Amino acid sequence: MAESDIRLYYKNVSADIIGENHGITKQQFKQLDELTSPVIFELNEEKNSGELPYRDLPFNKEIPKRVKALAANIRDKCENLVVLGIGGSALGNIALQSALNSYMYNLDDKQRKGPRLFVFDNVDPDQFGSFLDWLDDRLENTIFNVVSKSGRTAETAAQFLIIRQLLLDRLGEPAYKKQVIATTDRNKGTLRNIASAEGLATLEVPDGVGGRFSVLSDVGLFSAAVCGIEIDQLLEGARQMDARISSEDFYENPAAIIAAINYHYYQQGKRYSVMMPYSNGLYNFADWYRQLWAESLGKTYDLQGSEVHIGPTPIKALGTTDQHSQVQLYREGPNDKIFMFLQVKNFKHDIPIGQPPQSAKELGYLSGKTMAQLLNSEKVATEYALIQDKRPCMTVLFEKVEPYALGQFIYMYEAATSLTGKLFNINPYDQPAVELGKEATFALMDRPGFEEMAQNIQPFIKPDKDYLV
Amino acid sequence: MAESDIRLYYKNVSADIIGENHGITKQQFKQLDELTSPVIFELNEEKNSGELPYRDLPFNKEIPKRVKALAANIRDKCENLVVLGIGGSALGNIALQSALNSYMYNLDDKQRKGPRLFVFDNVDPDQFGSFLDWLDDRLENTIFNVVSKSGRTAETAAQFLIIRQLLLDRLGEPAYKKQVIATTDRNKGTLRNIASAEGLATLEVPDGVGGRFSVLSDVGLFSAAVCGIEIDQLLEGARQMDARISSEDFYENPAAIIAAINYHYYQQGKRYSVMMPYSNGLYNFADWYRQLWAESLGKTYDLQGSEVHIGPTPIKALGTTDQHSQVQLYREGPNDKIFMFLQVKNFKHDIPIGQPPQSAKELGYLSGKTMAQLLNSEKVATEYALIQDKRPCMTVLFEKVEPYALGQFIYMYEAATSLTGKLFNINPYDQPAVELGKEATFALMDRPGFEEMAQNIQPFIKPDKDYLV
Repeated sequence: MAESDIRLYYKNVSADIIGENHGITKQQFKQLDELTSPVIFELNEEKNSGELPYRDLPFNKEIPKRVKALAANIRDKCENLVVLGIGGSALGNIALQSALNSYMYNLDDKQRKGPRLFVFDNVDPDQFGSFLDWLDDRLENTIFNVVSKSGRTAETAAQFLIIRQLLLDRLGEPAYKKQVIATTDRNKGTLRNIASAEGLATLEVPDGVGGRFSVLSDVGLFSAAVCGIEIDQLLEGARQMDARISSEDFYENPAAIIAAINYHYYQQGKRYSVMMPYSNGLYNFADWYRQLWAESLGKTYDLQGSEVHIGPTPIKALGTTDQHSQVQLYREGPNDKIFMFLQVKNFKHDIPIGQPPQSAKELGYLSGKTMAQLLNSEKVATEYALIQDKRPCMTVLFEKVEPYALGQFIYMYEAATSLTGKLFNINPYDQPAVELGKEATFALMDRPGFEEMAQNIQPFIKPDKDYLV
Repeated sequence: MAESDIRLYYKNVSADIIGENHGITKQQFKQLDELTSPVIFELNEEKNSGELPYRDLPFNKEIPKRVKALAANIRDKCENLVVLGIGGSALGNIALQSALNSYMYNLDDKQRKGPRLFVFDNVDPDQFGSFLDWLDDRLENTIFNVVSKSGRTAETAAQFLIIRQLLLDRLGEPAYKKQVIATTDRNKGTLRNIASAEGLATLEVPDGVGGRFSVLSDVGLFSAAVCGIEIDQLLEGARQMDARISSEDFYENPAAIIAAINYHYYQQGKRYSVMMPYSNGLYNFADWYRQLWAESLGKTYDLQGSEVHIGPTPIKALGTTDQHSQVQLYREGPNDKIFMFLQVKNFKHDIPIGQPPQSAKELGYLSGKTMAQLLNSEKVATEYALIQDKRPCMTVLFEKVEPYALGQFIYMYEAATSLTGKLFNINPYDQPAVELGKEATFALMDRPGFEEMAQNIQPFIKPDKDYLV
């Protein structure tokens, strides 16, 4: 293993550390190995027979070629890149940007390695309105990347129609065609039809890859490439991880261990999985993980005529910040959570802590230390405190936060999700429960064909005064 | 009740809507009333006898006077205000700024109503380093507000010592004294001692008010006032809410209803409480709530010699964004959560959605509608979908997101926390479990007096290769 490879550390779930009531014994690890190894084999079979398109993304040479060509084409021609998308069409972009570019990227022209990046994954009129006010005299220097497999996602469609109108009204048709890039289905669907009819540049949402597994495709890579992130290194990291997560030796396979430990604890009643990076840059990866985990594993299935509701709940937290917010609960509240820390050995910056004045000798211990030392000490200290209360903890260790390591992390967690789905015996690739809300929205927005739904939902629109205080 | 008052809507927890297995029946509401009314009385007694200093904050005229005087003094003299604090010394500031000032505030000079605001509530060297790089030639125009009751919180102390050194080295002692404001204990402690010895301007962290209950004091109000937020209106909202949360008529008291419903569901095994604003601006209030709820209510107590672990877990989510991330789990996963939506009737902006092109007639239903209509339709639709699966839902309704309404919201949730603590029979004002991690950090940072802890923690510093993959 190379120094730059990420590592999974899981001793602090073992019974040796947190006792037999809450820890995993050697015997239980053996059972988890026996349970999980066949499932690794199955997943490898699926991959080899072409049934798992997300696993092929890092090996597809067309993707980086296409993405880099278009990125190079616009990179120096714009000051702002705006991604319009939601869910899997936004979370990966946000996570990569905040992990790999500097905190002040959008504010500091010296720290930018490309255009400013804005990713809008909501339809909040105050947020979008404030942005449009700022954009006013910058509209000409702005490229919009609309990301939607179908083009029918209401939020993204609404954003797109607003921007389309604005560009047409303000700058005219040639500018509109030059400034909008559609990332969508290769052949069909609303956004593909618009792009074809109006002559927009396009990128592809790959076939058979759900939004939450799509970050290593055009969807997540384009904004990254435009903002100066080395996407080849991201993909190289994912390819390197492929061997590790394909290993049928359970103890050599980090995705299998994550899956097995999560599955084990779910059965034991610990159904809440906290991802807590000790790094602000990695915090949005906890959001990316939240979607991957929740939408893939939250499922109802029928067991002999009765409904079974399955699903670990992912929770995001941030170290050290949430030590002053959540750790009281994490230690003294119900022992119903497992913790995954993300820890960074070497930060890009480090900052020496100044000497305290004479009037505060009690702060002398900080002098001569650095901010990174304090941050990583807090991580070890918090984990130590949690295991005193028998709370199971794991850590993903990053030598550095760089594209190669994040490619590994993404690919490892995607495989861990597939394996956990198999252990739960559910389909991790669909999201049937999202439909009803979409239809109810159509009904409330008077879309033809949803008149019956509109009637059903009518009684729920106005608050009933008996329950209003 | 005035139109600008916030309202709580809770019909969608009732058995009428989600059935007797998951809903609250009229009989159960009656029991909750009987259980909660005496507890409201107790809380009022505590307030009246001066034992609940956080309840007095909105009535203390010295606070806005002091805060506004200092804010007026620096407002026009600086371009950047930097708050250094963590937990309760940061979350309220962040929440008020993002709810009440515009999304592009820091980026758009036209949208700013004061200096740029940065709140650093971590010790991440990459984040802070990126900021310091940007700050370089702006240091002279920057005011730092260090917020810590004791001044010994390691993270805030480290930030402060870095900034202190920087100012002394770069601009000299007179500038350092002019550019740092300490918000701290009135009389004692490390930061008070430094401020006295070095002649820093100061503000007060009130006595007997924990960080998480302190937003309506100097702690949260100063940065708000500097950034143009009408703090008098915030306090007026809180005062108006005081009458409502003091009402011993359960059905007239929104804090009591929130407390009772949470308590009821906790007993029924629904121990996860999702706060999901349909507003980006309000999203950080879910973070503020997370601390208030988790740190106050996550407690261990002794019951006849055995430990009982209590604590609902707060979870933050964002509408509509998390419809494409969490709602699959929220609907099909275990029925173990209750939902609190925040809904805004009138946004500051609204944006008409453009007409779709001929090639996409299926988007015709969006044309002529607005972004706010879509956002609020999605909220109703999502709640409708959740109640089809018998998931209990409540909503706080905001006519507008304005200081008056947020003052009400803050004060209502603080009281709801106190009442829930009483129902659980725990002390919501302490945080004993945070200590061990602090001590372990001191040990790892070689602070004298923590040598024994350093020895205990030694085996946990280096990963054990047997559990490293």
